[in-house]
Amino acid sequence: MCGIFGVHGAQDAAGLVHLGLYSLQHRGQESAGIVAVDADGVARAKRRMGLVSEGLNVLDELAGTLAIGHTRYSTAGSSSIDNAHPVLVRFRGGYIALAHNGNIVNASELRRELEDEGSIFSSTMDSEVLVHRMARSKAERPDDQLAEALQGVEGAFSLVVASGNTLMAARDPRGWRPLVIGRLGGAVVFASETCALDIVGAAHVRDVQPGEIVIVDADGLRCRQALAPRDSRRCVFEYVYFARPDSRIFDGGSVDRARRALGRQLGRECPAPGADLVFGVPDSANAAALGYAEETGLPLELALIRNHYVGRTFIQPSQAGRSHKVKVKYNPVREVLEGKKVVMIDDSIVRGTTTRGLVSLVRAAGAREVHMRIASPPVTGPCYYGIDTPSREELIAANLSVDDIARHIDVDSLGYLSLEGMLAAVPGGPEGFCHACFSGDYPTPPPTDPDKLRFGCGC
Amino acid sequence: MCGIFGVHGAQDAAGLVHLGLYSLQHRGQESAGIVAVDADGVARAKRRMGLVSEGLNVLDELAGTLAIGHTRYSTAGSSSIDNAHPVLVRFRGGYIALAHNGNIVNASELRRELEDEGSIFSSTMDSEVLVHRMARSKAERPDDQLAEALQGVEGAFSLVVASGNTLMAARDPRGWRPLVIGRLGGAVVFASETCALDIVGAAHVRDVQPGEIVIVDADGLRCRQALAPRDSRRCVFEYVYFARPDSRIFDGGSVDRARRALGRQLGRECPAPGADLVFGVPDSANAAALGYAEETGLPLELALIRNHYVGRTFIQPSQAGRSHKVKVKYNPVREVLEGKKVVMIDDSIVRGTTTRGLVSLVRAAGAREVHMRIASPPVTGPCYYGIDTPSREELIAANLSVDDIARHIDVDSLGYLSLEGMLAAVPGGPEGFCHACFSGDYPTPPPTDPDKLRFGCGC
Amino acid sequence: MCGIFGVHGAQDAAGLVHLGLYSLQHRGQESAGIVAVDADGVARAKRRMGLVSEGLNVLDELAGTLAIGHTRYSTAGSSSIDNAHPVLVRFRGGYIALAHNGNIVNASELRRELEDEGSIFSSTMDSEVLVHRMARSKAERPDDQLAEALQGVEGAFSLVVASGNTLMAARDPRGWRPLVIGRLGGAVVFASETCALDIVGAAHVRDVQPGEIVIVDADGLRCRQALAPRDSRRCVFEYVYFARPDSRIFDGGSVDRARRALGRQLGRECPAPGADLVFGVPDSANAAALGYAEETGLPLELALIRNHYVGRTFIQPSQAGRSHKVKVKYNPVREVLEGKKVVMIDDSIVRGTTTRGLVSLVRAAGAREVHMRIASPPVTGPCYYGIDTPSREELIAANLSVDDIARHIDVDSLGYLSLEGMLAAVPGGPEGFCHACFSGDYPTPPPTDPDKLRFGCGC
Amino acid sequence: MCGIFGVHGAQDAAGLVHLGLYSLQHRGQESAGIVAVDADGVARAKRRMGLVSEGLNVLDELAGTLAIGHTRYSTAGSSSIDNAHPVLVRFRGGYIALAHNGNIVNASELRRELEDEGSIFSSTMDSEVLVHRMARSKAERPDDQLAEALQGVEGAFSLVVASGNTLMAARDPRGWRPLVIGRLGGAVVFASETCALDIVGAAHVRDVQPGEIVIVDADGLRCRQALAPRDSRRCVFEYVYFARPDSRIFDGGSVDRARRALGRQLGRECPAPGADLVFGVPDSANAAALGYAEETGLPLELALIRNHYVGRTFIQPSQAGRSHKVKVKYNPVREVLEGKKVVMIDDSIVRGTTTRGLVSLVRAAGAREVHMRIASPPVTGPCYYGIDTPSREELIAANLSVDDIARHIDVDSLGYLSLEGMLAAVPGGPEGFCHACFSGDYPTPPPTDPDKLRFGCGC
Repeated sequence: MCGIFGVHGAQDAAGLVHLGLYSLQHRGQESAGIVAVDADGVARAKRRMGLVSEGLNVLDELAGTLAIGHTRYSTAGSSSIDNAHPVLVRFRGGYIALAHNGNIVNASELRRELEDEGSIFSSTMDSEVLVHRMARSKAERPDDQLAEALQGVEGAFSLVVASGNTLMAARDPRGWRPLVIGRLGGAVVFASETCALDIVGAAHVRDVQPGEIVIVDADGLRCRQALAPRDSRRCVFEYVYFARPDSRIFDGGSVDRARRALGRQLGRECPAPGADLVFGVPDSANAAALGYAEETGLPLELALIRNHYVGRTFIQPSQAGRSHKVKVKYNPVREVLEGKKVVMIDDSIVRGTTTRGLVSLVRAAGAREVHMRIASPPVTGPCYYGIDTPSREELIAANLSVDDIARHIDVDSLGYLSLEGMLAAVPGGPEGFCHACFSGDYPTPPPTDPDKLRFGCGC
Repeated sequence: MCGIFGVHGAQDAAGLVHLGLYSLQHRGQESAGIVAVDADGVARAKRRMGLVSEGLNVLDELAGTLAIGHTRYSTAGSSSIDNAHPVLVRFRGGYIALAHNGNIVNASELRRELEDEGSIFSSTMDSEVLVHRMARSKAERPDDQLAEALQGVEGAFSLVVASGNTLMAARDPRGWRPLVIGRLGGAVVFASETCALDIVGAAHVRDVQPGEIVIVDADGLRCRQALAPRDSRRCVFEYVYFARPDSRIFDGGSVDRARRALGRQLGRECPAPGADLVFGVPDSANAAALGYAEETGLPLELALIRNHYVGRTFIQPSQAGRSHKVKVKYNPVREVLEGKKVVMIDDSIVRGTTTRGLVSLVRAAGAREVHMRIASPPVTGPCYYGIDTPSREELIAANLSVDDIARHIDVDSLGYLSLEGMLAAVPGGPEGFCHACFSGDYPTPPPTDPDKLRFGCGC
Repeated sequence: MCGIFGVHGAQDAAGLVHLGLYSLQHRGQESAGIVAVDADGVARAKRRMGLVSEGLNVLDELAGTLAIGHTRYSTAGSSSIDNAHPVLVRFRGGYIALAHNGNIVNASELRRELEDEGSIFSSTMDSEVLVHRMARSKAERPDDQLAEALQGVEGAFSLVVASGNTLMAARDPRGWRPLVIGRLGGAVVFASETCALDIVGAAHVRDVQPGEIVIVDADGLRCRQALAPRDSRRCVFEYVYFARPDSRIFDGGSVDRARRALGRQLGRECPAPGADLVFGVPDSANAAALGYAEETGLPLELALIRNHYVGRTFIQPSQAGRSHKVKVKYNPVREVLEGKKVVMIDDSIVRGTTTRGLVSLVRAAGAREVHMRIASPPVTGPCYYGIDTPSREELIAANLSVDDIARHIDVDSLGYLSLEGMLAAVPGGPEGFCHACFSGDYPTPPPTDPDKLRFGCGC
Repeated sequence: MCGIFGVHGAQDAAGLVHLGLYSLQHRGQESAGIVAVDADGVARAKRRMGLVSEGLNVLDELAGTLAIGHTRYSTAGSSSIDNAHPVLVRFRGGYIALAHNGNIVNASELRRELEDEGSIFSSTMDSEVLVHRMARSKAERPDDQLAEALQGVEGAFSLVVASGNTLMAARDPRGWRPLVIGRLGGAVVFASETCALDIVGAAHVRDVQPGEIVIVDADGLRCRQALAPRDSRRCVFEYVYFARPDSRIFDGGSVDRARRALGRQLGRECPAPGADLVFGVPDSANAAALGYAEETGLPLELALIRNHYVGRTFIQPSQAGRSHKVKVKYNPVREVLEGKKVVMIDDSIVRGTTTRGLVSLVRAAGAREVHMRIASPPVTGPCYYGIDTPSREELIAANLSVDDIARHIDVDSLGYLSLEGMLAAVPGGPEGFCHACFSGDYPTPPPTDPDKLRFGCGC
C-alpha cells in the first residue's frame, strides 16, 4: 500500500510531486518523501513520518526539474524513518532514487544472494535489493541497469526510478499494481492513479504496460519491453477498496463505475426484501450503496457521519468503552435509523472489528433490523503483493463461516458478493485479475519467509 | 464559530472533554483547550493552536472530575495562543474558567466601562469582559456572579463556566447558539451539539433554555431563569451548514432531517427539467442533494471526491494555477460527468470563489450543462452573532444580482431557495429564527465598532 | 533572580534587547521574553521557556524603536509560560509592558486589596499587581501612573516599564537590585548590569537611583524622585556570587575587583599554612581564588574542569551514582591534585550538596588534604528580596555548626569569611548593604505568606 | 574532530554511553548518536543533530549491555542527519555499528574500488567504506573482518565497532588520534579521552596501541596487532588545543600538564618585559597563561569573561557591528585592563578573526599595550587527519609573516612558540608527533581529492 509519483522536465518538479502526493495520500499515511535532482545532477531527499501536509513543506530546498515521491503505509513493526521512501543512494554512476509500490515475493532470497557477496543494507525494505542490483550491473545506461536488476524479481512492483537526468517507470510482468503515464506541457508525469495526474493538470496518456520500462531523458520518452509479460494479474482489490473513486486505473477502468457496478451486482445477488432503506459506510462504500439502491429500489440514506478530523496520533481514551475507536470516527444519525429495517453496505470485511462496532452503533441508534451486504467476497487469505492485509489468523472469514460471522457481528442477515459476480462487474473482467485474497488462487508460491517479508516489504 | 463542552462529576473529566472536542472539531479548527479542576480545587489549563488531535494529548496533567473545553475558529488577525480558550483567571473567590460560543455585540462598550474603572486585559477577546464582570460582582455564589455579569450583555452567547466546584451553562435570552444538557451516569455534560454527547455515551436531556443558567455542584443540578427570555432568534445557519448532520440542536431538531427537507423544498422551488443527474458538494451538501433527488426524481451521483488529508498547513503550490486550492480539495469523477447535464447542489454561496472553482472543475471533466442549486437564500449581510462570514464587500450576493452571480460562476442556471421556503423546511420553523445574514433583519443594532469586534470576538 | 533590559529610540530595538539578554542570561535561564512597540504604538510580545539562544530568534516579528526584555529564573512550582515576563496588558491608556527584578514582600496584601475590588489575575506573579495598580490610577501620564502604583509597595524591585511611547526605569527606595542607565548614540538603554551595556556598545552613564523613576519619551530623558529614599540596602550577594564579574553595579562598583578583594580578605582571615596549592570552583570562584593566592603566596592551579555543554534538560542517569550531577558538570585534574594538600575556594555554600560532591571528586583524584575556604559568611536565612535561596530547612548553615558542616562535606578544615570582612571588602562598604541571608538582619518583616510569595514572586 | 565511546558488559550500556558523550562534547557539537544491542542481538540507533543534551534522551528505547556512541563536528557542507554517526548496517553476519574519529586519506580511492564492484553508498562519509569492506570480507569472526577491512587504509582512525556480541576498538598504525581502554567492574569501556572514563567511574587501563585491535566478547578481552605499527604520529594539536585539560591521552600524558609546560616554554622563548599582567583567552588558554605567569613572574588576571550561554543557533544581530560575534561570546573586564600593558595568551591562531576581535575588545576596555603570545607555532597548513582546519587560503599564517599578522590583529608585539619548544614541552616529546599543520611535514601524500574528502570525512 503505497503511492508513487514522478516528474521529468517541469520547473519546480518537487512542488508538482508534493501536489501529486496529496492525491495519493489514501495509499499510505505513515510517511512521505520526495527526492529532487537539481541542474547540477545533485539529488536531495526529504522524508518525514506522517502525512504529506504535516511534514513536507520544505520544498525550497528541493530545486530541480526531475523529482520523484512516495507515500507509504506500513505495519507498526517496521515503522521508522529509516524505512521511509524514496530510497536514495550514491554509486559508481552517480545516484539512484527509487520509489516502489508492491511487494517482492523473493526479496529474502535476493537479499541473501547480495549479502553473500558482501552487500550491506541500511534498511529492512525489500526495495533496497533493487538499488543494489542496479548498482552491480555493468551496464552504462540507467534503463539497462534497471532492466538487468529486474530479472528474476518475483512479485508485484510498480516503480519510478531516477538516475542521472533520466526518469524511469516500470511495472511487473503481471501488472499487479497500477501505474499511469501523463503529460503536462512538455513534461512527463508518472503516478499510481489518474487522480494524481488530475491534481497537477496532466493529461492521461496510458498505463505503463506490464513488464515495460518507460524512459524519459533529454532525448524524450521511449519505452522497452524489459520483461516478458505473463498472465495479467491486476489487483481486483484496487477496484473494491483501495484506489480513489475519481481515478481510472488498469487501462482506463473507472473506479467509481466499478464500485457502482459492484453495488448493483450485490443488489441482484443479495437483495433485502422488506428493508426500509440502504446506506453505505462512508466514504469508501458510498458508490456501492448507490448502486445497490438503484438496483433494489430501496431509498438511499446518509445514516453514518464520519469525523475526518481524527488524527493519526489519536490515543484512545478509556471512557469510550468497547467500541470507542469506531465511535470517535463514526456517528449514526438517529433520525434516519430509529425503528427502521436497514441495509448497511460495506466494501469488505477484514478483521470484523470495525464492522461489529458499526453494527453496534447502528443498533444503539434505534435500527430495528440490520442487514449487512458486502460488495466483495469473503477475504480468506493474506495478500503477498502489496496490500497490507493481516495474517490468516486475524482474517475473520478465514476462520468463521458466513453464518458465524453474521452472529459475531450481530446482524440479522449477511450477504457477500460472489467471486464470479465481482469479476463480472469490474472493468475489463472477468479475466486477468489477481483475486488470491478471496479465492486462494495465488499466482506465485508464498514467500518462504513471510514474517521477514512483512518487515522487509517495500510498501 | 466555536464548540464548547463541560463535564461535572466524572472520573477523568478532561478525557471526556477531549473526546467531546473531537466531535466539535467542525465548529473550530484554529485552537483547542481544556481546563480541568482537581480534587484540591486547583484549575489547570492546556491550550494549543491546531486540531484537537494535534496538540491536546497531555491529559495526564489534567486531573479532576470537573473540566471544560473549547474548539475555536478565528480570523487570521486575532489568531494567537493568547486568544485561545478557555479563559482561566484567578480572583477573590478562587478561579473562573470560561468557554464561549457566540459574539457579544456591545463588547467594546462593556470593555470601555471596565477600562475606565482601571481593569486590564490580557487578550483581545470579548469573552474576557465576562470574567471581569463576574469577578467584580459582590455576590458569593458563582451562579449569582454569573447572573450579575450577564445583565446588559447584548448579543449571542452560549457559555460553560467553572468556578470552585461548580459547573454552569448559560445561553443568551434569544437562544442564538445551541447548547444541550446530557447525563452520563451520575455526571452532567454540556455540549454545543448532541453529537458530542453521543461520543462520550451521554444521554440527551434537553436544551439549556434561552436566558437560563444551569448549575451543577455538590448539591446536584438546578436551574434558574437568569435573564428574561426575548424573541427567539435561533441561528438558521446552524441547520443550513454549520452543525453536524448527526446532531440534534434547538429543542431536538435533527440537522440531517433539516437538510433533507431543505433539499426537497429546493427541488420544489427550483427544479431543473431536462437535467441528467444531481450531485452535492461533499460532505456538507450531501443530505440536501439526496432530498433534491428524492423530490425531482433525478438520479443521485457522487461526482466530486473530497480529499480529507489536506492539512491546515497546506501551502498552495504555484503550479496548480487559478483554481488550485479547490483542486487539491476536490476532484471530479469524469465518468459520471462527461457529456451530462448536471445539477450541482451546495448549501450556500459566500464569496463565490470555491463555487466558481468547482464549476470550472466540473466543466473540465466534461459536463455539458451545469445547473447550480443552493439550499438557502443569497447571503447578503455579515453575521454579528458568531458565524465568521466576511464583510459585506466580500459577499458575492451583497454585490451582484442572481443573474450576475450565475455569469460570474459560469453556470447555465442558478437557483436559490427562498427565505420562506428555508424557514418552512427547518424544524420548529418558520418563526423564531435569526436569518439576518439572508434577510437583513438584524435583531440588534450593528456593533459600533465591527472591526474591533471581529478581532475581539470570542469565537 | 532575573535580568531586565530596555531600549528607547534605537532602530531594531528588539534586536538590541535580544543581544542584551544574552549578557543577562546568568540572571535567569528558565524563560526569556521581549516586548517591542512599533511605530503605530502596537505592542507585541514573544516569550519562551528556556535560554535566549533557544527560543527568541523570531525578531523579525518585533518591529519598533522601543522594546524591553527579561530573563527569568524561578522555582519549579511556578515554572510556566504563563509566568514568563515581560507582562503585557491592555488598559484604558493603551498598553503596559513591565519587566521586574526583585520580590515584592507585601504582594499578597496588595493582591488581596485588588481582588476585593474585583480584579482578576492571569498569573501567579507578584509583578501583576503593579500593572493593575498602574491601570487603576486616574493619572494621565505613564510616569504619574507608575509613581502612584509604587506607593506602599514594600520590598525589592528594579523595573523597566513601557507604555505608549514612553520607557521608564524605577528602583525601590532601598536600592536592593542593580539597574544602570546607558547611552547608545541618541538612544537610552536600561540594564540590570553594565555587561549588558557593553554588549550593545552603550556607554555607562550612572545607576538609576533608589526611589527614582527615569523617564524617556519624545521629549528626551528626565527623572523624578518618586519615592523617598530609605536606608540603602544594596544586595551584597550580587558582589559575592550573582552578578557577572565584568559588570559594574551599585554606583560603578566592579564585581571582579570585589571578588578579588573578598579572596584577599579570606586569605588574611583564613590562611591554610602547609597547603601546596589553591584553586577555585569554576567559573564563579576564580577571581576569589586568584585573590587568595595573591594574599597567601600559594600557587594557583586549575584543578577542576567545568563542562559547559550540560543542558537544562539533563536527566540524571542512574549509573553515575551518588555524586553524578556534580560529576557531569565538573571533572578534577588528577595530575594537579594527586598527593597534594589543597585549598579549594568557593563563593558560598547553600545546601552543601554540590560542595560535598566536589570534595568527594577532589579526594578521589588523589588530594591528600582538602581545606575549604568560602569567600562569604555562612548563609543562615532565606532571601525574601529576589535571590532564589531555599527555605531555612534546606540551608546547611542554618542547621549545622561550622565544624559539623566541615564533617558533613568531609574536609580537613573549613573557613568562612567574616561578615565584617565581607562588608569591608566590597566596593562602597561596609555600610548600606542588605546582608540578611548572612546576618538575619532583615530590613522588612518577613512576608506573611512566604510560600505563596515563592510561587508568586516576580523573579 | 569527533569523540567516540563504547561499552561492553554493563547494564544499561546506552546510559553509560550517553554519560560518556557528555564528556566528549568538546570533540564535536554538530550531531550525536548511540547504537545499542539488546539481548536478542537487535541493534538500534538514535542519532540527532545538536548537542548530547538536546537530543539523545530517549534512552529507554536503547536496551542492552553493548553500546557505542559518537559526537561529531563537521563543516557546514556535509552537515546532515544522513551523515550522523554511528553508522549502522545489516549484512550477512547480522549487523555492523561503527564510530570513527579521524580521516581516511585514501577514502576516495577505496570508495571508487567499491563502487566499481557495484557497492552503493547512503552517505558521504569516509567511514562508510569501512563497513563495506568488513561486509565483503569472507572471514567469519568480526575481528578478522575488521582486520581485513583495515588493510590498505591510509590516514588517521580511531574506531569502536560492534558486531554480534563483540565490541572492538582499533587505532591506525601511526596512532594519530587518542583512544583509551577502561574497566568498570566487569565491563570494558573505550573512549577518546580519559575524561569520559572518569565520568562513568571507569578505571584507566592503557591506550589502544597503534595498529592494534582490542576485542571484547563473551570470552573476555583480547588484543591483536592487526596492522604493523609505523612511525608514531600522535597529533600534537590534541595537547595544544583539542583534548580536554582533565584528560590523559597518548600513553597517559596529561593535557593540563602539557599546556602548563607550553606556557612556561612560551614564557622562556617570548617574554614581555615591562608588561603589567598576563591573562589567557578562556577557557582553552587558561593553563598556558598560568604557566606563562609562573615562568615570567607577571601577575595572572582574569581579564576576559566568556558567556557560556551562547547557543549553536545564535544569529548575529546587525547592531553589534564589526566584532559582534566575539562580543557576544567574550566581555573584557575594564577594571583589570584599563591603562595597563597586558600580555594575552592564546593556544593558537587559525584564521585570525577571533584574535583580532579580542584585541579590539581589550583595547576598547582601556589596555595601553597588547602583547600577544601564542602557545604553539604558526599554523601554516591544513590538517588531513581529522582536525577541521580551514584550507590554506584561510590560514592567516600561511599567507602573512608574523609581523604582518601582528599588524593585522593590531597588537604591539606578537610571539609564537617555536616548533622545537612545543615538541620539547609536550609529554613524551619531542619525537613521535604529527606536526604537519605547523611544519608542513605531512606523513602521507595529501589526499588526491581534498574537497571531496572534506565533505566525505568521517569526522
